[in-house]
Amino acid sequence: MKTTLDPKRTVAELKELRSLTGDDNGAQRIAFTPTWAKARAWFRSKLEQLPIEIHTDAAGNVWHTLRGESDKAMLMGGHIDSVPNGGWLDGCLNIVAAAEVLRRICAQYNGKPPVTVRLVDWADEEGARFGKSLFGSSACSGALDMNEARGLKDKDGIALPDALKQHGIEFERVKDSNCELKDAAAYLELHIEQGPVLLDMDLPLGAVLGTFGVERHAITFHGQAAHSGSTPMNRRRDAFLAAAKMSPEIYKITDRNGGVCTIGSCTTKPGIVTSVVEECRITLDQRHLDPKALAQMLKEARDASEKFAKEGNVAVSWDRLWQIDPRPFNNDLINMCDEAIKETCGKSHRLPSGPLHDAAEMAGAGIPTIMMFVQSLHGISHNKIEDTKEEHIEMCVTAFDKLAEKAMGWIKGR
Amino acid sequence: MKTTLDPKRTVAELKELRSLTGDDNGAQRIAFTPTWAKARAWFRSKLEQLPIEIHTDAAGNVWHTLRGESDKAMLMGGHIDSVPNGGWLDGCLNIVAAAEVLRRICAQYNGKPPVTVRLVDWADEEGARFGKSLFGSSACSGALDMNEARGLKDKDGIALPDALKQHGIEFERVKDSNCELKDAAAYLELHIEQGPVLLDMDLPLGAVLGTFGVERHAITFHGQAAHSGSTPMNRRRDAFLAAAKMSPEIYKITDRNGGVCTIGSCTTKPGIVTSVVEECRITLDQRHLDPKALAQMLKEARDASEKFAKEGNVAVSWDRLWQIDPRPFNNDLINMCDEAIKETCGKSHRLPSGPLHDAAEMAGAGIPTIMMFVQSLHGISHNKIEDTKEEHIEMCVTAFDKLAEKAMGWIKGR
Repeated sequence: MKTTLDPKRTVAELKELRSLTGDDNGAQRIAFTPTWAKARAWFRSKLEQLPIEIHTDAAGNVWHTLRGESDKAMLMGGHIDSVPNGGWLDGCLNIVAAAEVLRRICAQYNGKPPVTVRLVDWADEEGARFGKSLFGSSACSGALDMNEARGLKDKDGIALPDALKQHGIEFERVKDSNCELKDAAAYLELHIEQGPVLLDMDLPLGAVLGTFGVERHAITFHGQAAHSGSTPMNRRRDAFLAAAKMSPEIYKITDRNGGVCTIGSCTTKPGIVTSVVEECRITLDQRHLDPKALAQMLKEARDASEKFAKEGNVAVSWDRLWQIDPRPFNNDLINMCDEAIKETCGKSHRLPSGPLHDAAEMAGAGIPTIMMFVQSLHGISHNKIEDTKEEHIEMCVTAFDKLAEKAMGWIKGR
Repeated sequence: MKTTLDPKRTVAELKELRSLTGDDNGAQRIAFTPTWAKARAWFRSKLEQLPIEIHTDAAGNVWHTLRGESDKAMLMGGHIDSVPNGGWLDGCLNIVAAAEVLRRICAQYNGKPPVTVRLVDWADEEGARFGKSLFGSSACSGALDMNEARGLKDKDGIALPDALKQHGIEFERVKDSNCELKDAAAYLELHIEQGPVLLDMDLPLGAVLGTFGVERHAITFHGQAAHSGSTPMNRRRDAFLAAAKMSPEIYKITDRNGGVCTIGSCTTKPGIVTSVVEECRITLDQRHLDPKALAQMLKEARDASEKFAKEGNVAVSWDRLWQIDPRPFNNDLINMCDEAIKETCGKSHRLPSGPLHDAAEMAGAGIPTIMMFVQSLHGISHNKIEDTKEEHIEMCVTAFDKLAEKAMGWIKGR
């Protein structure tokens, strides 16, 4: 075993995993499928020669534990599952890089570091099969809505509890996994950015401030169907007109408040070329790191929708689809992450995470949390063209290792 | 037989037809179905005691001919077919009212009016079963696209030529019906307005200036899918944003040019709450009575779409779905129609027709054409709630009869 960090090995192992579990369309490690189980078996084979304990918790998360002088534990987490036709780095980069860090710590401290070090592979971060993301980490944090999850089915009608059983997991007991967090003192996660911010700034790495809070709604405007030929313009109650006005408006809302807003879908009824639109439904996704700003963005969107509805003599109704509070990360760990990045490549940048990650569940459970982002080429993820330069992958392994060392010292000293 | 016009009989006969061929959801006289055939048999029974010839032409249109002193013919046309769940007046009002006018002319002129009078029941005005409206009248006018029509199928996969055969019509010969127009000197059609213009003006009747020309396009904006959380607003290529800007714009276009514009449908891809819209397709229907104004409206919409695409760094493409030129009606007949209305109820109004009618085919074939509209309650049609006050139905029969008398004199004197 090498006694020093070997970032090139991480690149090689990522390629090995890609060959084993991907195809021409990208990564195929959908959670609770045979390919996912194969990926996990491969990962186990990479680590079982280390002096660590490996076990699977009640929610299907796999824990690799190197006992230290203190029971206080530094957690490094990620997920080996992917979306269908996914990228080769999303999720598994964290896992494979953390394995390299774990090897380095094992070697440097002769199997007994100052604090306990644990690598966790969360079960089903993506939610690709059952539509419920962060399954394993939210079961562990306690946030999982059991009633909602119990009823989830995949496209073949198979219920989540039945699929879990096939992988040895008893659905009703998944929250027992919470015991794993007893001595957790910090949670570290490395991830590909999945956006263009670092790319645009020409920076390899960034320190993440936290995950955005999300307000997600369906907004439905209710007008009146009318013949496109015989209805004068001033007599129309055009649901599409009111909905359409929302699109430029959300750009104004983010100009004023920061954050991001997206209208991702629009449907029209009756939706025929010869009729004014009677009903138009759009979805609105709003995200911000600051809860007050997020609440303000939501208020401004509601006010605008009511104004546009009134202007067009139509009605409007809102349905909340989903909501999560912002999850700010730990300031000390953010500073350490910044330092580790600067020591590795000279310059760092602090940025929020738009996408959710398992780290949000750990922050929500009160564990001091940090994420590090590595630049994403094309700013694209959840797609086979997702990529990161190999030199940046090597840099992120180095920087993440430095962050882990700093975090161990911080935990020890608290 | 009564020798004077009896508009109340028209109301009674319309109610009789409704009972015979409608149900709780409205009229069910879809062309080339048994209910339609039943309606036509009922109508024949109402007229066969008159001294007229009744025959079906090569396209399935039924002609009721009262020979006059001159071969020059005044045509009165309408359609007994309806959309599914249609209104009780759309189409059949013309037929039933024209039958009353025919009775009056028969009686007054002892079966020999100064010009020939013909009542035509066009086959399949609505196109409800095969998606092709104005079938019978466009076969007769010669405008029918045989190649397009030959391939039409209903929702059960039955081809139009096969359905026609079941009703005794040989598809390849439908244009032989054109011989019916040989001596046509004027075409008159009475119809429910299907819009709110007369209702808003509190007028029972109006003289129609012509049918709108129509430009119908699909407009597709092509952007880039991107994660709703990780993509900064200024990096987005949001296809929905560009499409949405078209909606207020079409109201500005009609402010400047008159006419009407409708965005009737909007679809988004991938169309999920967590992604910026990559592709957005809207349909645009533009109508105007003046061909120059219609061309200008189309140009302004194209220019706007290109401007919005450029602003949002997306591409735009246009596909023509359908087009028809404006069909202005005959000025002498418009004046006569106005006079007939004023003599009946004191005040008239001239208005274009937004919807198409068989009259557009006759105007397109070069026959001097006129339509009269009667007020539509709710401004709604193609729906079971379509309605017109009984006193207005009676008025329209009286006014249409006066128009017919004027038109006969006009034909005779030419």
